[in-house]
Amino acid sequence: MSSSSSSLHQVPLTIEGAWMLHQMFTFQPQWHALGTAEKRIMLRDVSLFLRDCEAAGNGQTMFYSVIGHKADLMFVHTREEPQQVHHAELALSRLPIAQYWRQTHSYFSVVELGLYESSVKTYKALQEKGLEPHSAEWNAAIQDTLQRQREAMGPRLKGEMPPRRCICFYPMDRIRGEIKNWYSSPIEERQRMMHEHGLVGRRYAEVVKQIISGSVGLDDWEWGVDLFADDPTVFKQIIYEMRFDEASAIYGKFGVFFVGLHVPADQVEPLLVG
Amino acid sequence: MSSSSSSLHQVPLTIEGAWMLHQMFTFQPQWHALGTAEKRIMLRDVSLFLRDCEAAGNGQTMFYSVIGHKADLMFVHTREEPQQVHHAELALSRLPIAQYWRQTHSYFSVVELGLYESSVKTYKALQEKGLEPHSAEWNAAIQDTLQRQREAMGPRLKGEMPPRRCICFYPMDRIRGEIKNWYSSPIEERQRMMHEHGLVGRRYAEVVKQIISGSVGLDDWEWGVDLFADDPTVFKQIIYEMRFDEASAIYGKFGVFFVGLHVPADQVEPLLVG
Amino acid sequence: MSSSSSSLHQVPLTIEGAWMLHQMFTFQPQWHALGTAEKRIMLRDVSLFLRDCEAAGNGQTMFYSVIGHKADLMFVHTREEPQQVHHAELALSRLPIAQYWRQTHSYFSVVELGLYESSVKTYKALQEKGLEPHSAEWNAAIQDTLQRQREAMGPRLKGEMPPRRCICFYPMDRIRGEIKNWYSSPIEERQRMMHEHGLVGRRYAEVVKQIISGSVGLDDWEWGVDLFADDPTVFKQIIYEMRFDEASAIYGKFGVFFVGLHVPADQVEPLLVG
Amino acid sequence: MSSSSSSLHQVPLTIEGAWMLHQMFTFQPQWHALGTAEKRIMLRDVSLFLRDCEAAGNGQTMFYSVIGHKADLMFVHTREEPQQVHHAELALSRLPIAQYWRQTHSYFSVVELGLYESSVKTYKALQEKGLEPHSAEWNAAIQDTLQRQREAMGPRLKGEMPPRRCICFYPMDRIRGEIKNWYSSPIEERQRMMHEHGLVGRRYAEVVKQIISGSVGLDDWEWGVDLFADDPTVFKQIIYEMRFDEASAIYGKFGVFFVGLHVPADQVEPLLVG
Amino acid sequence: MSSSSSSLHQVPLTIEGAWMLHQMFTFQPQWHALGTAEKRIMLRDVSLFLRDCEAAGNGQTMFYSVIGHKADLMFVHTREEPQQVHHAELALSRLPIAQYWRQTHSYFSVVELGLYESSVKTYKALQEKGLEPHSAEWNAAIQDTLQRQREAMGPRLKGEMPPRRCICFYPMDRIRGEIKNWYSSPIEERQRMMHEHGLVGRRYAEVVKQIISGSVGLDDWEWGVDLFADDPTVFKQIIYEMRFDEASAIYGKFGVFFVGLHVPADQVEPLLVG
Repeated sequence: MSSSSSSLHQVPLTIEGAWMLHQMFTFQPQWHALGTAEKRIMLRDVSLFLRDCEAAGNGQTMFYSVIGHKADLMFVHTREEPQQVHHAELALSRLPIAQYWRQTHSYFSVVELGLYESSVKTYKALQEKGLEPHSAEWNAAIQDTLQRQREAMGPRLKGEMPPRRCICFYPMDRIRGEIKNWYSSPIEERQRMMHEHGLVGRRYAEVVKQIISGSVGLDDWEWGVDLFADDPTVFKQIIYEMRFDEASAIYGKFGVFFVGLHVPADQVEPLLVG
Repeated sequence: MSSSSSSLHQVPLTIEGAWMLHQMFTFQPQWHALGTAEKRIMLRDVSLFLRDCEAAGNGQTMFYSVIGHKADLMFVHTREEPQQVHHAELALSRLPIAQYWRQTHSYFSVVELGLYESSVKTYKALQEKGLEPHSAEWNAAIQDTLQRQREAMGPRLKGEMPPRRCICFYPMDRIRGEIKNWYSSPIEERQRMMHEHGLVGRRYAEVVKQIISGSVGLDDWEWGVDLFADDPTVFKQIIYEMRFDEASAIYGKFGVFFVGLHVPADQVEPLLVG
Repeated sequence: MSSSSSSLHQVPLTIEGAWMLHQMFTFQPQWHALGTAEKRIMLRDVSLFLRDCEAAGNGQTMFYSVIGHKADLMFVHTREEPQQVHHAELALSRLPIAQYWRQTHSYFSVVELGLYESSVKTYKALQEKGLEPHSAEWNAAIQDTLQRQREAMGPRLKGEMPPRRCICFYPMDRIRGEIKNWYSSPIEERQRMMHEHGLVGRRYAEVVKQIISGSVGLDDWEWGVDLFADDPTVFKQIIYEMRFDEASAIYGKFGVFFVGLHVPADQVEPLLVG
Repeated sequence: MSSSSSSLHQVPLTIEGAWMLHQMFTFQPQWHALGTAEKRIMLRDVSLFLRDCEAAGNGQTMFYSVIGHKADLMFVHTREEPQQVHHAELALSRLPIAQYWRQTHSYFSVVELGLYESSVKTYKALQEKGLEPHSAEWNAAIQDTLQRQREAMGPRLKGEMPPRRCICFYPMDRIRGEIKNWYSSPIEERQRMMHEHGLVGRRYAEVVKQIISGSVGLDDWEWGVDLFADDPTVFKQIIYEMRFDEASAIYGKFGVFFVGLHVPADQVEPLLVG
Repeated sequence: MSSSSSSLHQVPLTIEGAWMLHQMFTFQPQWHALGTAEKRIMLRDVSLFLRDCEAAGNGQTMFYSVIGHKADLMFVHTREEPQQVHHAELALSRLPIAQYWRQTHSYFSVVELGLYESSVKTYKALQEKGLEPHSAEWNAAIQDTLQRQREAMGPRLKGEMPPRRCICFYPMDRIRGEIKNWYSSPIEERQRMMHEHGLVGRRYAEVVKQIISGSVGLDDWEWGVDLFADDPTVFKQIIYEMRFDEASAIYGKFGVFFVGLHVPADQVEPLLVG
């Protein structure tokens, strides 16, 4: 295992913020048999739900009309506690409209900031002090680093979703192949690749906002990525440019892509009934 | 990473044109229980929808009867703005016939012209001038190249679909394997392979029209390919010949193939009701 | 790429014959709730459809009762023109029974004779004359070869299906792996492997009839294989023996297998109603 | 290809016995809405069907209640002729209960005894005599070997299923990878591995009965395996131990596992209605 | 095969405890059309079922509300006998609510303690005594070791599920790739990797309880893992940290992850009806 060529601890530090649940729904054929008035009544509940979420103030619920057959609608919930995203899910399942749709996809994750740079720096410092990983002193120093990062990164941990016209969501993994394996490459190599990867993102910072959430042990992929932009062309530009990064070209594995248009609470009926 | 053997910037330039949405529908068993008169009324809406699209003049909507079980019907929309293809999708979902079909597949993409030749030439020239990638001067030169290409390629960016008797649509990727990886092979190599690949296409230019659309960050594959021909034998000939190209033989990965017969607005009822 | 080790043109010549459509249907639970009399009326339409196809004289439609859950029924249509197989499909979709089944699988292809031996011989001869691939003289010589083969192979191009008791249908690909890749192995190697493969088939010629159809660019696999025999044991024998051929052992990739019993028009009701 | 390192014929001999069809059914939600009396009437048909099969004397039909969501019920039919297993399937599809279940999985195969030891011995003997594979003399000698084996193995070819409390069924393949390929390893190697594999099975002979059926050309995997035991712990023990055999560790690829409890004809109602 | 480099017996010893069945259910759209009163009546049956299970005293049945679209509800049953978990499944299928849900996933397994350390030690000792694997003396010594472990591990074999707020369940395999293959690496290597793997688990022992169940020959993956914690953040932490272990990084293959909130019998109605 190549980690033996590195004497550093291999697990990068992360800090976690808001809990996220993406829910994708597809209308059943019966929905399309309903009259306009019946549809309006049920969509009004969706608008009210969105307004209630906004009023509650413990996170956001954004609503999107999804392009293509993969879903008709997508709700993205961020909340302070994990139970709260499930309660949002249960509340939606109790609306009368719930008999007309199916939840065909979903994604459960938590806003995550990966601290590769800080991890390598901290591990090196602790190693020079002669500390053993997982010793009491080591653990205290790590907790200290995490706490300082949490304070510095506070606002980014909320995972605030901007009201841009378009969203692009997809889950991803780092590959663990028989020859190329992200998890057995040395942490300094991974840090270098993540750094290069980050430089691309930074060049697009003005036109696209990005939220990364971690889902190891929570859902079937390792991370979820949300991109928010007014023009979806930038989704293609940033992801295509990143595909040539070593971190993506060799180690990135991507799931299903959902692209949707943002629907504010007062646009639900006009957009979906016409 | 083999890109280190090349000192050039690795990301090929592309220019984008019309937005595309492919929608594939399958009739529910209930459709087949309807009487001929009821079917006719609902199919008339489809004809009207096609005529409205034609009249609107901001793109095309072509309609196909698909061979085999993968779908019964396929609509292909091209529009100037991304919202417009979604509005076409929503308009279809509000027709009464929508309760009798399911949208079982779809593809969201944007007409793309890949500029490998121009990219390598430009990157070499800028490098000789001593410019750094992503510096202000570099960016200005790149924008200049893109603008000139957009002007030169104008008509091709519209992705105009000809009324040929048959269509073949399929999505594709370039592989990122553990040994063979398109995205980590040097840009000059990729340019050479794309050039050879293009020579095959050129020999078939008279009998088959091809539209390439990019979908990185928009849908689950990297590109969508539409071929239009009067005789479907040429779909087999061109794709089989290309399969021996290095770009396809080694790096091509193909999705589901949809083959359909073009149905003009005035043929919808006769074809589907008989 | 290993093709550089061979100076010959790499694309084998093929000639095409009848168009084929395999359609597999599964009954909905509602079918099983119908009374015997209702079932008989609807199955009579299927018998009539089969007789009409026979009377039309532009191809065959064979009907099979499929073993196992993958399908209940399979129709295999051969026709002179591609539109005609789709018209057969549309005609079936308009029968009243269509509300009780779902088309769960299908396969669209065209009878294909691969000419590996003739290709290598022709390419060598043209090369010795100093001709360039795709030059006018080269193209004329190729067309000449194809035409002579079409005349010689005429009857086999019809893809005539014999009324044997059993059918076995499956689609297949030649693999394009990162190490083993059929499409980048030299044409002389592929010819040698196809020749050995053919020898096995020849030893079974008396007990099994085989139809190969090509589907590159038409459906999701590269070829479809139909075997016809009175005793299904021979399906196992021939395919197991072939699996040890280099062409299959290393380069063959196989899809779903459908095995069914032939049902002549006058046996549809007795078999399915009992 | 490694077969060139072996001068022996590579295809192992097999002998075939009873035809097998596994059918797995899942109840539709409507079944659970029926009253107990209605369920009883329909389950009585299943008991009668099982008794009729037993009375017919041309094979067995065993019935299992399957654990987990993959199926509710499994029928395993063995019959002398291939048509007979399909007739059993059609008979079940005509019971009134058929409108309340779906056949969600199935497996079609034929009891197979692989003769690796005898094959290598016979091929060596024929080679020493200087016979060519597939020559008339060779073929006669092979037929002779097969006939002697059929006589010796007679009872095992019937695939008799014992009334043990539990069944475990799964399909499997031998892998044909780019590096490890069962079908291109020399027959003497395969014989050695099959021999070691068999030794494990023999140690469990008292507590588990095993039936191997071949399905190359009949269904989507190469073999089906049925294990019968009173205590399902032995399914785990024998398969886990075998997984460390070279034949399984490196070359085994396994499909879906079905585990069920045997339900004799007189227990169908009590078990399923309660 | 690398096992030849090790002279020890290769199969690790395991001891088995309680039988486990995970059942995941998804409500049909019809459920959402029911009134609150009807839902309450049917959910009361679920509460009663949970209380009956508790009263029976032959194992546990825990109930979870699952986050996301993969399921709405999950029951986890542990029982002393394999038939008993199936009887629990049948009892649930007979509740009136069963017509409103579908069992969309499940997992059948048995609590397993892997004895890598003890296996290597025992095999070495027996080998030094000159005993042959599977000889009578060898078998007696192995049975003796297993019996001593069963007595020592008694309580852990029950697989007692604690009433923590959250559960995380996922199935997993050890990979058998063409290059990296867990099953053909020497038992001493596997012991070393399992030991390191266990050290990570031990550091989380206070905040997460873990139950490992074996499912080779019982279900489609080799093991099932259940984690119980009050805060789901620890699921992400422990699994992410483990992913850098050699045993997981290189040899772990993971299935679908189910995360749910524990619902005690008296909370079923309030949570699901609101």
